[in-house]
Amino acid sequence: MHYLGRLRRLRSGLEKQKLDSLLVTHLPNVQYLCGFSGSAAALIVSDRGSILFTDGRYRTQAKEEVEGARIVITPKSPAMAAAESLAAPRRSSTLLSVGIEPESITAGMRNRLASVLKGRARLRFAPPLVERARMVKDAAEILRIRRAVELGASLFRIASQRIRPGVREVEVAAAMEYEARCGGAEGMSFPTILASGTRSAIVHGRASTARIPRRGFVVCDFGVILADYCSDRTRTVHVGRPSLDARQLYEAVLEAQQAAIAAVRPGATAAEVDGAARRVLRRRKLARYFTHSTGHGLGLEIHEAPRLAAGQTQTLEPGMVITIEPGAYVPGKWGVRIEDVVVVTSSGCEVLKPTDKELVVI
Amino acid sequence: MHYLGRLRRLRSGLEKQKLDSLLVTHLPNVQYLCGFSGSAAALIVSDRGSILFTDGRYRTQAKEEVEGARIVITPKSPAMAAAESLAAPRRSSTLLSVGIEPESITAGMRNRLASVLKGRARLRFAPPLVERARMVKDAAEILRIRRAVELGASLFRIASQRIRPGVREVEVAAAMEYEARCGGAEGMSFPTILASGTRSAIVHGRASTARIPRRGFVVCDFGVILADYCSDRTRTVHVGRPSLDARQLYEAVLEAQQAAIAAVRPGATAAEVDGAARRVLRRRKLARYFTHSTGHGLGLEIHEAPRLAAGQTQTLEPGMVITIEPGAYVPGKWGVRIEDVVVVTSSGCEVLKPTDKELVVI
Repeated sequence: MHYLGRLRRLRSGLEKQKLDSLLVTHLPNVQYLCGFSGSAAALIVSDRGSILFTDGRYRTQAKEEVEGARIVITPKSPAMAAAESLAAPRRSSTLLSVGIEPESITAGMRNRLASVLKGRARLRFAPPLVERARMVKDAAEILRIRRAVELGASLFRIASQRIRPGVREVEVAAAMEYEARCGGAEGMSFPTILASGTRSAIVHGRASTARIPRRGFVVCDFGVILADYCSDRTRTVHVGRPSLDARQLYEAVLEAQQAAIAAVRPGATAAEVDGAARRVLRRRKLARYFTHSTGHGLGLEIHEAPRLAAGQTQTLEPGMVITIEPGAYVPGKWGVRIEDVVVVTSSGCEVLKPTDKELVVI
Repeated sequence: MHYLGRLRRLRSGLEKQKLDSLLVTHLPNVQYLCGFSGSAAALIVSDRGSILFTDGRYRTQAKEEVEGARIVITPKSPAMAAAESLAAPRRSSTLLSVGIEPESITAGMRNRLASVLKGRARLRFAPPLVERARMVKDAAEILRIRRAVELGASLFRIASQRIRPGVREVEVAAAMEYEARCGGAEGMSFPTILASGTRSAIVHGRASTARIPRRGFVVCDFGVILADYCSDRTRTVHVGRPSLDARQLYEAVLEAQQAAIAAVRPGATAAEVDGAARRVLRRRKLARYFTHSTGHGLGLEIHEAPRLAAGQTQTLEPGMVITIEPGAYVPGKWGVRIEDVVVVTSSGCEVLKPTDKELVVI
């Protein structure tokens, strides 16, 4: 990964914001900027260089992973150690302007940092510079996401083999997760959703000990983390012969997904893509059953910018990687969701690991 | 679970703090207080009752799970919706005093809440009332942790069967995680650590694609989430014939663990328990290789209060559930950690699922 380039671009972004340094505390941002993947870290980025603070547990790991930053091992909270380093006496007596990440740092930590830095530096809420940079993936990142999506997609074969009436949802999830791990995944990118029968109406129906009923939809929403990058995919299958109603619901969601995919191109807004899916479901009188947004960016995190929802004015750019996942859920009855990951290209988008999405009947 | 009792006790805690309401945003605290387990929520607790705010994805789930609180479904951020409800016109014109959780709410959200509540309420950092309540588990919680630890402990049998020279660490982890899922676990309580050979010196050595070498330690640190509660356990085995040095390292860590367990009793401080382990390792000239704290509370979260480390004055009370996990790590060479979960009793502690901890040689 091109850590030095990322740090350099961030530094020029800081200059434009008239910030002397940025105190990076959101861990995926720390990893994006210098490679460190531990669970306790703070990174100072400034024109005098970058310093990663972590604790004694990560001495060896930090040495192995970090590029472009000096490493400081501290017995304290990494952010507090960073603040003390920023508060150290300097030649110039001007007040430093230090950016913090308002959506990652806690209110309590902000106050503790402010008291350490009193008289030395002023804390300012920085704009989401790193999140903005992370929206557009470079070639190395797209390759990793492609690999993660390939491994992720292979799990659906396992699901199709295991989904049978009477089998517990968790057994299906367990078999998928085993396959993921043997394929090299560090873990799942979120708790596997396997929601059968009336549970398919629960948007976030994590695999439970419920047994798959003899008839009905099974929503399978699953993703892996492979070499730090996430995949995300949803397929909905039907156990037993589907009714005409069930087929129509499935067709409507599939049509909505295809309409949204067709709307993805550079210059389109996130809201336009969301609107394309919603329009199809409105025409089918299903709009009120589509209770979430159409998709989200993904990368080092399973949910990243941009968000594909009404009112989102962010325009799409080549290199963005987003999910397209409309659904329709009738409470107490059933639900359907279909999801793919797509990469925005110069002319439209590429669906990663595309498949025929005709309704699979088990 | 006794949600109404928990909410009642919290309300009397708020009174003592002269807070009119508490805005609970730390999700495990929300779950502890009213049962809701979704990923987007804010809970207002006040003497006029409790209100849970969540979004449309969780309509069905909230109805199923929540006890003791009214449910409000909102298209907005739950915390912002809660703030707007607190800002609604009331009969009295006195300024409300609203507690927020400083270590959970972000600095950005704090400012947004403050601007919604301007002139209506004053935000105050609340002490960690819910975290303090959660430290002492009730009988129903201890039963759940006991079940989680039993399931967790059973995974070590799988590990012992799978750990062989040449096998990849992730394959061992995958087999353990499959067993956990089939045993009903919602998931693992943290990424499974399986660190073999020189990787055993990495305290947080997540299972990697590295192959287990013919000789050396393998640190296995693993836990499940079962019925919302976490387990946590570490066993270190040796592949191939251990050298005298290796045996001595293992014995020292085991003696440190036993000394710490023996120090657990009501009235002892967290620092005293930590000191008991550290003293043994100091005598063996291994103190500098013990780079983390001796343990932590666990329950709905894998890391909860209290923390067993130097300087921690928290005294132990019956019903607290903590890990005891000293270790020693020689960078680039090897490492050992041994961990159990114990419940503080009226006279000492009970080790959950205790086993003979003689060095297992594979």
